[in-house]
Amino acid sequence: MSAAPRGSLYLVPNTLDFGAKSGIAPLQQVLPLGVIEIAARLPHWVAENAKTTRAFLKRVDGVVALAQTLQAIDIRELPRPPKGGTATSPSAADWSALLAPALRNEDIGLISEAGLPAVADPGAGLVDAAHRAGLRVIALPGPSSLLLALAASGLNGQSFAFVGYLPVDAGARAARIRELEALSRRERQTQLMIETPYRNEALLAALLSHLGGTTRLSVSCGLTLDNAFSRTDSVAGWKAAPTTLPADLPVVFSLLAA
Amino acid sequence: MSAAPRGSLYLVPNTLDFGAKSGIAPLQQVLPLGVIEIAARLPHWVAENAKTTRAFLKRVDGVVALAQTLQAIDIRELPRPPKGGTATSPSAADWSALLAPALRNEDIGLISEAGLPAVADPGAGLVDAAHRAGLRVIALPGPSSLLLALAASGLNGQSFAFVGYLPVDAGARAARIRELEALSRRERQTQLMIETPYRNEALLAALLSHLGGTTRLSVSCGLTLDNAFSRTDSVAGWKAAPTTLPADLPVVFSLLAA
Repeated sequence: MSAAPRGSLYLVPNTLDFGAKSGIAPLQQVLPLGVIEIAARLPHWVAENAKTTRAFLKRVDGVVALAQTLQAIDIRELPRPPKGGTATSPSAADWSALLAPALRNEDIGLISEAGLPAVADPGAGLVDAAHRAGLRVIALPGPSSLLLALAASGLNGQSFAFVGYLPVDAGARAARIRELEALSRRERQTQLMIETPYRNEALLAALLSHLGGTTRLSVSCGLTLDNAFSRTDSVAGWKAAPTTLPADLPVVFSLLAA
Repeated sequence: MSAAPRGSLYLVPNTLDFGAKSGIAPLQQVLPLGVIEIAARLPHWVAENAKTTRAFLKRVDGVVALAQTLQAIDIRELPRPPKGGTATSPSAADWSALLAPALRNEDIGLISEAGLPAVADPGAGLVDAAHRAGLRVIALPGPSSLLLALAASGLNGQSFAFVGYLPVDAGARAARIRELEALSRRERQTQLMIETPYRNEALLAALLSHLGGTTRLSVSCGLTLDNAFSRTDSVAGWKAAPTTLPADLPVVFSLLAA
């Protein structure tokens, strides 16, 4: 092969404190130094949000000096996912433009607002385009709220599924909850889901209404924050001793049918 | 509440270099300093393997001095999972004995040989027992080969499932592969699986035999090592340009039906 040298696409984990008002840990408490060092030298970024990426890079600079000024770092945003059918999905040309620096042998970082990019977050399209372009993709270790919640749940970690958001419509949501419980029982598979924070309480109420009393339900919030909290109990136990969920922090819900 | 103060159960991530012969990074490159600091002060451990836990604590000591000598640290192993139906599953009394130090207000660490404990690894039973005993469970951030592989795959990270090992019997394995492909297509859900390293090549061959040509298949190995490698391609692309997999390193396989 005599191909020109290529840059790599680094998948850079962000902290999990996005939107938190208290209990935020210093960067080194939650990200490996090796990851902070790589972040400090990357000249190009593709981000879910440019503003939060600049805030992240300021925190990086407090631990390892940035290789260039923040103003000189190239930060571009991922195309927004199409909503309401009016916009179109990103095209191959959109991805090529974002990956162009790698063809000049410069490395690119991909980052989301919290946790690992491309997991329960935008970015997978860019990673797939990088593979199609023959670029090296390197995922860096860091916090993932889904996996921390699964570990902290004590539910089955040998078989699990993340299913994203449940329907908002009450009838469709109830049917989906019963479907996930049946699937969990049949496959002995933990089912994980998330919700927009202001609907955390509504999702918990729906789960308690529609799941069987012996199904185990786990809730984790504020993971990696000082006030992190994980509770696992039977649905009957939750009903007997309710816990109020925050309306301003992400929560991961997990269930396993008994 | 006037209950006596209790210790916490910390879920401590290990590195992903278990069994690797080269390319191993220093501890600080892959684990947050905050996690290393907590590991250095924990007086009690419940471990998948005591010997590898002592090796881990020696690496910790090289970054942050252990609060007590390695000999003074209490390390007990998780009960082995029952095999062949002759042994019985761990009882509530087994878990209580392992969690006893927390009732004396001493913290306990749970650790596996690689990655996050209780995720694709033993330990969930202990975590569940901790919740039943009303102990605080704190999951610490670190590398997870499953989530890093998923991020690096570029496949759907908004819906995914980890299904563990596939059957060894060729017929049952072929049927399971077709079942997972159908499930992936129906739910648009990435399916992740693992294999005993010496069977990596056999699983790859089976996947290429039984999946449709347009299904996307991703393979990640050596994650967080210097020689980490992720490839995503269509099954037809894999067949046209095969990659040999290592027989001595864990590999994560992911598929998404097109």
